[in-house]
Amino acid sequence: MTNLSAILDDIATEMAVETERGAVATYIPELAKVSPDHFGIAVVTRDGHIHSAGDAAMPFSIQSVSKVFTLSMALERLGEKCWRRVGREPSGDPFNSIVQLEADNGIPRNPLINAGAIVISDILLADRTPSATIERILAFIQMAADDAAISIDNAVACSERDTGERNMALAHFIRASGNLDHPADRTLEVYFNQCAIAMSCVQLAKAGRMFAFTQQFDPDVLAPITPQHARQVNALMLTCGHYDGSGEFASEVGLPGKSGVGGGILAIVPGIASIAVWSPGLNAVGNSHLGALALERLAHRMGWSVFGTT
Amino acid sequence: MTNLSAILDDIATEMAVETERGAVATYIPELAKVSPDHFGIAVVTRDGHIHSAGDAAMPFSIQSVSKVFTLSMALERLGEKCWRRVGREPSGDPFNSIVQLEADNGIPRNPLINAGAIVISDILLADRTPSATIERILAFIQMAADDAAISIDNAVACSERDTGERNMALAHFIRASGNLDHPADRTLEVYFNQCAIAMSCVQLAKAGRMFAFTQQFDPDVLAPITPQHARQVNALMLTCGHYDGSGEFASEVGLPGKSGVGGGILAIVPGIASIAVWSPGLNAVGNSHLGALALERLAHRMGWSVFGTT
Amino acid sequence: MTNLSAILDDIATEMAVETERGAVATYIPELAKVSPDHFGIAVVTRDGHIHSAGDAAMPFSIQSVSKVFTLSMALERLGEKCWRRVGREPSGDPFNSIVQLEADNGIPRNPLINAGAIVISDILLADRTPSATIERILAFIQMAADDAAISIDNAVACSERDTGERNMALAHFIRASGNLDHPADRTLEVYFNQCAIAMSCVQLAKAGRMFAFTQQFDPDVLAPITPQHARQVNALMLTCGHYDGSGEFASEVGLPGKSGVGGGILAIVPGIASIAVWSPGLNAVGNSHLGALALERLAHRMGWSVFGTT
Amino acid sequence: MTNLSAILDDIATEMAVETERGAVATYIPELAKVSPDHFGIAVVTRDGHIHSAGDAAMPFSIQSVSKVFTLSMALERLGEKCWRRVGREPSGDPFNSIVQLEADNGIPRNPLINAGAIVISDILLADRTPSATIERILAFIQMAADDAAISIDNAVACSERDTGERNMALAHFIRASGNLDHPADRTLEVYFNQCAIAMSCVQLAKAGRMFAFTQQFDPDVLAPITPQHARQVNALMLTCGHYDGSGEFASEVGLPGKSGVGGGILAIVPGIASIAVWSPGLNAVGNSHLGALALERLAHRMGWSVFGTT
Repeated sequence: MTNLSAILDDIATEMAVETERGAVATYIPELAKVSPDHFGIAVVTRDGHIHSAGDAAMPFSIQSVSKVFTLSMALERLGEKCWRRVGREPSGDPFNSIVQLEADNGIPRNPLINAGAIVISDILLADRTPSATIERILAFIQMAADDAAISIDNAVACSERDTGERNMALAHFIRASGNLDHPADRTLEVYFNQCAIAMSCVQLAKAGRMFAFTQQFDPDVLAPITPQHARQVNALMLTCGHYDGSGEFASEVGLPGKSGVGGGILAIVPGIASIAVWSPGLNAVGNSHLGALALERLAHRMGWSVFGTT
Repeated sequence: MTNLSAILDDIATEMAVETERGAVATYIPELAKVSPDHFGIAVVTRDGHIHSAGDAAMPFSIQSVSKVFTLSMALERLGEKCWRRVGREPSGDPFNSIVQLEADNGIPRNPLINAGAIVISDILLADRTPSATIERILAFIQMAADDAAISIDNAVACSERDTGERNMALAHFIRASGNLDHPADRTLEVYFNQCAIAMSCVQLAKAGRMFAFTQQFDPDVLAPITPQHARQVNALMLTCGHYDGSGEFASEVGLPGKSGVGGGILAIVPGIASIAVWSPGLNAVGNSHLGALALERLAHRMGWSVFGTT
Repeated sequence: MTNLSAILDDIATEMAVETERGAVATYIPELAKVSPDHFGIAVVTRDGHIHSAGDAAMPFSIQSVSKVFTLSMALERLGEKCWRRVGREPSGDPFNSIVQLEADNGIPRNPLINAGAIVISDILLADRTPSATIERILAFIQMAADDAAISIDNAVACSERDTGERNMALAHFIRASGNLDHPADRTLEVYFNQCAIAMSCVQLAKAGRMFAFTQQFDPDVLAPITPQHARQVNALMLTCGHYDGSGEFASEVGLPGKSGVGGGILAIVPGIASIAVWSPGLNAVGNSHLGALALERLAHRMGWSVFGTT
Repeated sequence: MTNLSAILDDIATEMAVETERGAVATYIPELAKVSPDHFGIAVVTRDGHIHSAGDAAMPFSIQSVSKVFTLSMALERLGEKCWRRVGREPSGDPFNSIVQLEADNGIPRNPLINAGAIVISDILLADRTPSATIERILAFIQMAADDAAISIDNAVACSERDTGERNMALAHFIRASGNLDHPADRTLEVYFNQCAIAMSCVQLAKAGRMFAFTQQFDPDVLAPITPQHARQVNALMLTCGHYDGSGEFASEVGLPGKSGVGGGILAIVPGIASIAVWSPGLNAVGNSHLGALALERLAHRMGWSVFGTT
């Protein structure tokens, strides 16, 4: 796929000169320090080749992208029982998510909104210590990305803990509704740390292979998740992966994807490719502005869409 | 695809003996008269062959399935400008849709909820009479299905008009917010009639070709919608097509689809097939109970999913 | 009470020079034509004397002030059964009123919000024609004010009907929930007309005597409402009479009162006085700006507050 | 007022034989242990006489009744500036209070809902330690009740702290919105302890004198609050003092009042009497069932209503 490498280079060149780059998230102090000039992209294809351009080797805070990995772990642990503690429907606007939590007795609408991801963290805790649980999450992602160098950025982790009043509120609400087995602060210790995992585009694209090629792992390695769970996570990414811009992303890019406020997006072309893109500036609904634009162009030029060929 | 025909026959046989069949909608008197024993399914493949089983030739009220056709017409007429008057994000629970309408100044979240479909009806009215507009909608669907016999069930149309207080309320709210160009009763006359279009599974599957095979129409016939619009409609069906069961349908069936309270579902396998299924009994969130079950089995047996192979 | 007359004159003089006068309601075209320079006030005391100042004899559109009179009629007709169809709790912010209507199966929170007043209009209809019902409402108010010259301003009535899309929506919602016995348009014909009743401050203060002095009517005339109902209406005025400014009015003026977007306010000093004030400019929450200010000064200078002496 | 004592005795006798007594609050374990058989009532009149009946000397947990005292302290400290941090409008149904908090940037609707009382606790903290702040609150109430024996029930305080997840959530939300100067757990330590103050009906009625007779305190003692603040607190009690039963209480009893889930109610007859009643069983909206009934009978028999004589 020389073609693919050339297209990535073109896109990186185009992104470099874009003047409208979005705004870097400021609510987490450590994230606010990152320059909006960065742009990186990496694609892993079915044959295992890695194509990349720009700052594809530079680690960034994956933030909410971590939710698809913890969800995968919870699915392997509990299977369909997960859906008793968290729904799988889109949540509507952000405002709705709290109203809904109140109305639905603490069952979050889906595992990709904060409330749902907190419940998933609680499932993974399973009476372990928060630090043991965080170790397991990190190990799972390192295994999936085949890279033991992936780590947690402690500066971001602490920063999240200091500014996460809103997530504290959500956790206490869920606990008040009886849908949290562990105290709010223990569950949030897991959650805040998983959000602070730092990965490069190359590492993230490699970890995303579990959603793109469920049968492709080394026969010596247990595939991390079943094909059914991979499809379920892809479905959730497509319907709920971009906050209140999920519908627009589905419409314009046409691929399952999950974004984080660190500016990263993981996107999946089922059976064909796992893509990671990063640019720190966010659009009005909190997704990487250039990341989404780059994915739209890449999908268009490659004819990648789950909704029909171009 | 003898295989496909055999699978459809098997599924129809399985559905015939299911005892849990859901509940027929009662809020529209004419629909309440339909027997829950019916089940029909039809699939049109890329080569143009039609495979069917059960009551695939029996007309039923397509109800909300009509929304994907009127949306298609509006997209051809206004293009991207449509998205100024209606959003394309999932709406969350039904309760949320009214709250949201209030909060968003009368811009419905998407064109597949009632409020959004009413705005689309208003776009199609375009200063014509309601009856002329209804004629155009019917002609569009007849053309797409290649069947001039498709008609409106006047008994259902009137029945809707008598019981549609809630839709009247929505239309007046939208009008109050300045997002309806025509009086509420004129817009609703279009809306109520489009919902009363009667089609068989075979007719509906044929009409659905515009979303599955955008390049496949007879070169003598103008393809009814552009490939880009087909992908956009598919994306909306996947994220918003099954009310508050959209996420579950995406997760379990893995295909874009739109259901109606008449018990019909249109489902699309992009590039491969257009599927229509019908069984009048509805599940708790208002989608055909056996229709969804049959699609889940068909998708599983054929390996059809936009989210990865089985 | 020469003192009272002097105080009213002083207040009228003070109001005449106020430069901050609020904004005249524009959503009803006829109301938008009224000059913000008007100010009138009238007080009827227990001994029957009428004290007034400013434009106290000039008729204005009473709008929502009419709700206390139709509620009184409904209470006389149905008694406590009224509370099965409408609540008597404050509704919170205006936004909440629609959400609540949805959540509470069409039972409005109280009879002084639009939804509740529409239900009261429906109770008064009682299978009569809208025009016969309007006649009865007008007759009730004429009797209470002892002035047969009170009439409906037809220009305002029609204007309301043309712009009342939002109230149409509310009525259809309530009808959809089964809490409206008559079609939405018939009920609203009553509602729109009652809002268009025109009264002067003197007439309104006289009509308000039924809430201030329940035993004071001529023994030859049947007192229009019972003491218990007068107290209930006063309680509703105090908790819900000024939209989202009810709490502030209770806190600053300390009297039961009901405002209308025409700029009128009826306020009651139980056992002591019935007050009507009018100035067309409204504050941010829709109550007469100078009307509220004048009442605050009058209450302070007279030591009138139901919450303790000054 | 021999008459008053006789009426109280009659009411206590009537309450003793009531079989419908409501349900004791179970969400705070310590409260769940209290017998529903208790009933006590005490009235302090303008002349300083104390009339009582039943278990009027038995201490109970005042819970939310404490909110009127902490509000009074905050008003004396900040005056009108309080209203920048908390509103004074009724909040509608309980469900609405969280939605509203979200919509209004963390400004609670009024100081008598939990969210508002938490902000008041934060105002009183003023960089002191929680325990010093609690001491001050207790001293204020002891002074008002002229009884240094009033204390905090530590068993209840701890119990609240263990079960107060929902209040933790509210505090973190408010803190996230920037309307809490101190960390959530410090503010809640104040809040949980103030709710655990134990008082008898006699003590509570005496403390309530500050709202009933603002000029009546011993000239040697500084009156605890100004007449204006007393009227403001009375207005808030009337509009917001009984959760989602505030309107019904205003309508049926006609007096400002504040209830707590411990079964206590403080009610004020401005200028005439301060009343405290206690019975642990609660009605559907969380107010003392017999307490409200007893107040309705007492108000009726004494002709006490701020909305007009009976």
